[in-house]
Amino acid sequence: KQSGAQTEASSSSDQSAQGQAYDGLSVKKDGHLMTIAFNRPKKYNAITTKMYADLTEILNTAAKDDSVRLVAFTGVGSYYCSGNDLNNFMGVDPSDISKIAKESGSLLENFVGAFINFPKPLIGLINGPAIGISVTVLGLFDTVYASDKATFSTPFTVLGQTPEGCSSFTFPRIMGNSKATDVLMFNRKLTAAEAEKCNLVSQVFPSESFETEAFEKVKEYSSLPPQSMRYQKDLVRTFDREQLHKVNKMECERLVERWQSQECMEAIVNFFTRKSKL
Amino acid sequence: KQSGAQTEASSSSDQSAQGQAYDGLSVKKDGHLMTIAFNRPKKYNAITTKMYADLTEILNTAAKDDSVRLVAFTGVGSYYCSGNDLNNFMGVDPSDISKIAKESGSLLENFVGAFINFPKPLIGLINGPAIGISVTVLGLFDTVYASDKATFSTPFTVLGQTPEGCSSFTFPRIMGNSKATDVLMFNRKLTAAEAEKCNLVSQVFPSESFETEAFEKVKEYSSLPPQSMRYQKDLVRTFDREQLHKVNKMECERLVERWQSQECMEAIVNFFTRKSKL
Amino acid sequence: KQSGAQTEASSSSDQSAQGQAYDGLSVKKDGHLMTIAFNRPKKYNAITTKMYADLTEILNTAAKDDSVRLVAFTGVGSYYCSGNDLNNFMGVDPSDISKIAKESGSLLENFVGAFINFPKPLIGLINGPAIGISVTVLGLFDTVYASDKATFSTPFTVLGQTPEGCSSFTFPRIMGNSKATDVLMFNRKLTAAEAEKCNLVSQVFPSESFETEAFEKVKEYSSLPPQSMRYQKDLVRTFDREQLHKVNKMECERLVERWQSQECMEAIVNFFTRKSKL
Repeated sequence: KQSGAQTEASSSSDQSAQGQAYDGLSVKKDGHLMTIAFNRPKKYNAITTKMYADLTEILNTAAKDDSVRLVAFTGVGSYYCSGNDLNNFMGVDPSDISKIAKESGSLLENFVGAFINFPKPLIGLINGPAIGISVTVLGLFDTVYASDKATFSTPFTVLGQTPEGCSSFTFPRIMGNSKATDVLMFNRKLTAAEAEKCNLVSQVFPSESFETEAFEKVKEYSSLPPQSMRYQKDLVRTFDREQLHKVNKMECERLVERWQSQECMEAIVNFFTRKSKL
Repeated sequence: KQSGAQTEASSSSDQSAQGQAYDGLSVKKDGHLMTIAFNRPKKYNAITTKMYADLTEILNTAAKDDSVRLVAFTGVGSYYCSGNDLNNFMGVDPSDISKIAKESGSLLENFVGAFINFPKPLIGLINGPAIGISVTVLGLFDTVYASDKATFSTPFTVLGQTPEGCSSFTFPRIMGNSKATDVLMFNRKLTAAEAEKCNLVSQVFPSESFETEAFEKVKEYSSLPPQSMRYQKDLVRTFDREQLHKVNKMECERLVERWQSQECMEAIVNFFTRKSKL
Repeated sequence: KQSGAQTEASSSSDQSAQGQAYDGLSVKKDGHLMTIAFNRPKKYNAITTKMYADLTEILNTAAKDDSVRLVAFTGVGSYYCSGNDLNNFMGVDPSDISKIAKESGSLLENFVGAFINFPKPLIGLINGPAIGISVTVLGLFDTVYASDKATFSTPFTVLGQTPEGCSSFTFPRIMGNSKATDVLMFNRKLTAAEAEKCNLVSQVFPSESFETEAFEKVKEYSSLPPQSMRYQKDLVRTFDREQLHKVNKMECERLVERWQSQECMEAIVNFFTRKSKL
């Protein structure tokens, strides 16, 4: 992964001095814009336990760093992010399940909490398929732009799990309960155009020009009056913030229960069995 | 109507043993899926006083029946449901109006309350025109699929009435206040495509393949991990449930006043006068 | 401006007896319908300090006038309304800035409060470009119809300002946070079709037939049972009214701070400098 981050950094050599390397993540600063890229292309940018902790810290630090005025998320390679690395659950000693489930729940709650609390504009630049937690937290982003190669799927129910990232609260408010349930409960995968139609995504760009067009816009935004942007975000979030933290807590508590449930274990085993047969 | 129910039952003979006959309703179980069909095709599936009571009981019983994991609503014939049977209001002795209005309000509040409280996924399969209360309660469904022959209309204002089914709360949240008012107050009828565009409906299917495609999907969903589905629905609803019951109560109280008002009586008389002239 | 109002009045001579002249506004009554038109076409219908006060009074008076059952807003000429007249801020003696900012905040809070409290249906007939405050208050309208020549833009951030009209609350609920931020923070201008797609607008009409089609509909609505309409609006608004007043207060307090900030002053100077160079 280290090498992946370096490849990414070297392709934009003018910012390389500011680039920071994390396992599976590439963080760059360009003026007042910080870009965080999921960077494990061989694993479709799946999020490891360490990446959750690193992302939480990166966001919490950027929140206090006055030189950062705007943060954008994207992915290296063809995927945006394939969500939680299911290997995070593998090889756990049965006697440790309860302990690990609680630790994972706490890790997730802090991770999502960092998005709820982030005081500056947060923009998603969705270059390709997005899955699971990388989709659900988009409801906490300020705006989302997508390449026409992006897709959005949240296969929680087939894995015996339940939604996180405050999506049980944000998704019905963004796209209405009918589409939110179709996506979150019945595993409907949205194309970029469908995601735009139901307001999860603000604008869709042709994949050929996505990097130039969408990234350029975001770069421009980073020079807008910073206080105006922060105050505006605060106006929008102030009435929901407490509610979002409650939802986050409830979602994580439910997942801690789910991860220890027979239903979830069977569903995950079925998933890997089907996968290994392909 | 009895014969209609039998026709419906016989056309799906493999489930006939589980079929239950109600006046104007047909209730079937297929594995863990319960399908409730409005079945008064000659009356465009209008809902009688008895049907409100039966549906309330069916939902409240299914809520506690572990063999039922998912409930779908649909209509027999070309209509989904033409809403409240206006004959429910006819032939009432003027001295009884106050008593009947209160009873109807109570019946309606319990009916809508059963939808608010229903703890399992509830899916609308809208095969044709839907009117009035059959449209408004869709805001309490978890997802809605429609045939391209479906339409959605709520002619409350022309009848001197006001919205129910919690639509005064759910519709602005689903489709924004601009479209919600156009539909609920100004009697705009939505096509299936328009209902999808404004997020009331999640997916639209060609009428030719609606039964196979949409019904098949719902059948598949009924085998998803049941606890995951229930917990997810609970996460979505938990913050709104109390609010929804308040809205339901307010809407019903308002209707009890409306049904006894001069404005409403004149509007209904006008409606029947116009109708009889056609 | 007086002459503009007269031109407008004379072009609809049958209502001229009921017409009332305000500087920059034309107010007409046609049966139970009151139509308020922004009428400063040479200034693209920008809103002066006096117009804010007049509009507040007009709405508060119409609220209590039983002969008015429905109010529609539109614009005279090619624009709907270009928003706050930036000249309102010009020529202010530096020592008066704090006083003027507070007065302007109070004026704005009362203006927006009149929309929050207005108890009868309020319809926007957007004939052309709408900017700033004329866009944001649309979230408080009951429904909005637009000509295909309408556009919607809210360039707050580039002017170092923040949203008003309760849009920080209503816009994310109408169009989802992703599009709301794109519009309110990143100055994305919506076409009529885009505004309809994201539910800010309910219906779009060809500009050629906008006056006949859309105005005719609104005229028809004004003969619907008035109590039904008012009670319905009250059901929809009752749960949000207190919240909306809080949001309005917060937004205005923030603007009072913004108008006195270095960031805002520099942004406005930049705006006029760029404009004078064109």
